[in-house]
Amino acid sequence: MGEPRPKQNENAPDPTVPKAVVSRLSLYLRELQHQVRDGKETTSSTQLGSLLGFTDAQVRKDLAYFGQFGYPGIGYRCDELIQAIKKILGTNRPWPLALVGLGNLGRALLGYRGFGSQGFKVVAAFDSDPHKVGAIIEGVTVYDLASLPQIMEQSAIKLAILAVPATAAQGVAEQLVACGIEGILNFAPVTLTLPPEIEIIGVDLAIELEQLSFAVVRRRTDEQAGDSSAIA
Amino acid sequence: MGEPRPKQNENAPDPTVPKAVVSRLSLYLRELQHQVRDGKETTSSTQLGSLLGFTDAQVRKDLAYFGQFGYPGIGYRCDELIQAIKKILGTNRPWPLALVGLGNLGRALLGYRGFGSQGFKVVAAFDSDPHKVGAIIEGVTVYDLASLPQIMEQSAIKLAILAVPATAAQGVAEQLVACGIEGILNFAPVTLTLPPEIEIIGVDLAIELEQLSFAVVRRRTDEQAGDSSAIA
Repeated sequence: MGEPRPKQNENAPDPTVPKAVVSRLSLYLRELQHQVRDGKETTSSTQLGSLLGFTDAQVRKDLAYFGQFGYPGIGYRCDELIQAIKKILGTNRPWPLALVGLGNLGRALLGYRGFGSQGFKVVAAFDSDPHKVGAIIEGVTVYDLASLPQIMEQSAIKLAILAVPATAAQGVAEQLVACGIEGILNFAPVTLTLPPEIEIIGVDLAIELEQLSFAVVRRRTDEQAGDSSAIA
Repeated sequence: MGEPRPKQNENAPDPTVPKAVVSRLSLYLRELQHQVRDGKETTSSTQLGSLLGFTDAQVRKDLAYFGQFGYPGIGYRCDELIQAIKKILGTNRPWPLALVGLGNLGRALLGYRGFGSQGFKVVAAFDSDPHKVGAIIEGVTVYDLASLPQIMEQSAIKLAILAVPATAAQGVAEQLVACGIEGILNFAPVTLTLPPEIEIIGVDLAIELEQLSFAVVRRRTDEQAGDSSAIA
């Protein structure tokens, strides 16, 4: 969850890539995909940033962390930049996913169309409720948690989405680790304690609401102070 | 979505508060709430950061954006720091919310327990499907979208969660704006174009997965390079 420490690898000319830059890469990717759907072949940093609310300088600076992508007089070739960003994000090849926990949220995530369009496919779902095991939801079979080792190996699953209750999360996460998981997207409202080589991203939806209320309260304060243009 | 521009208000001694700092405030708040539940009355920046993977220096630097909260020889008083962070985030008073769209995701969000514990309460749900209107889900009544102006005024709703399909999102968002909404948490996979005074936070769950695959790919690269300790 913290800022990445400085490190060096062949994909990153600059060794320190702030987390926020990686988040913005995803946004640039979405915008490029929209532009290609609209029939555009090339784009500029200005066009790429405008709908997202970023300056052209921000776009250029972010991309410069990873290399040189534009052409003088042309700008960016959309398809080429899409492939480059996907390679950086690791989504230039499909990731088979496990989803654990089939409550309301798990079911919603199985039906979430945004995953497939970016190369993520839930290939197996798991629950401990015998009434759910054996069901096929959104085309995905629900297995008993006991089948985790076998299915994960068969399907070469290295990433999992954890949508179980908070009380079950740590135990299930440890089972996933024992089966060779490398990354967990955790929707359970709890901090997981796992070996440091396991990547964990925690999704706490209340945090998003807190960020929203922070922004609204700050805007009100600024407006009361007569500075209504302070927030972009 | 961009970094906030420099601005000044009475809650912020330092006028520029990076978005990442505000996100971390939410994490500190969660950790403090856990510690209070465990019976602790005071804590330190080291204790506050350790489970979250942040250094004590990071914790102190983040909090210093907003004022002076610790006591020499004591550290932080948990309850006091909780109240201070809630005031900064604007969650020291309850926010009544509207939720629009009752597909799988909307239903999951209605049942999501993490909202209520942070002061967010969905008081009204809206859908355009006549079969859903009138239902009571998780204790919340589902209204027709046509009732939006009336219900929003009655319940003093200023924040909304948008969980409608992408094709409907912009239209519904404009209706919310016409009814005086100040902030929208948008789960629809589309960029909303709204007046600049409306705060929007977009939740694209595939972005979280992309951040996870980025971290996993980078770790593999670093490990191949014999630098297995490069990622914290």
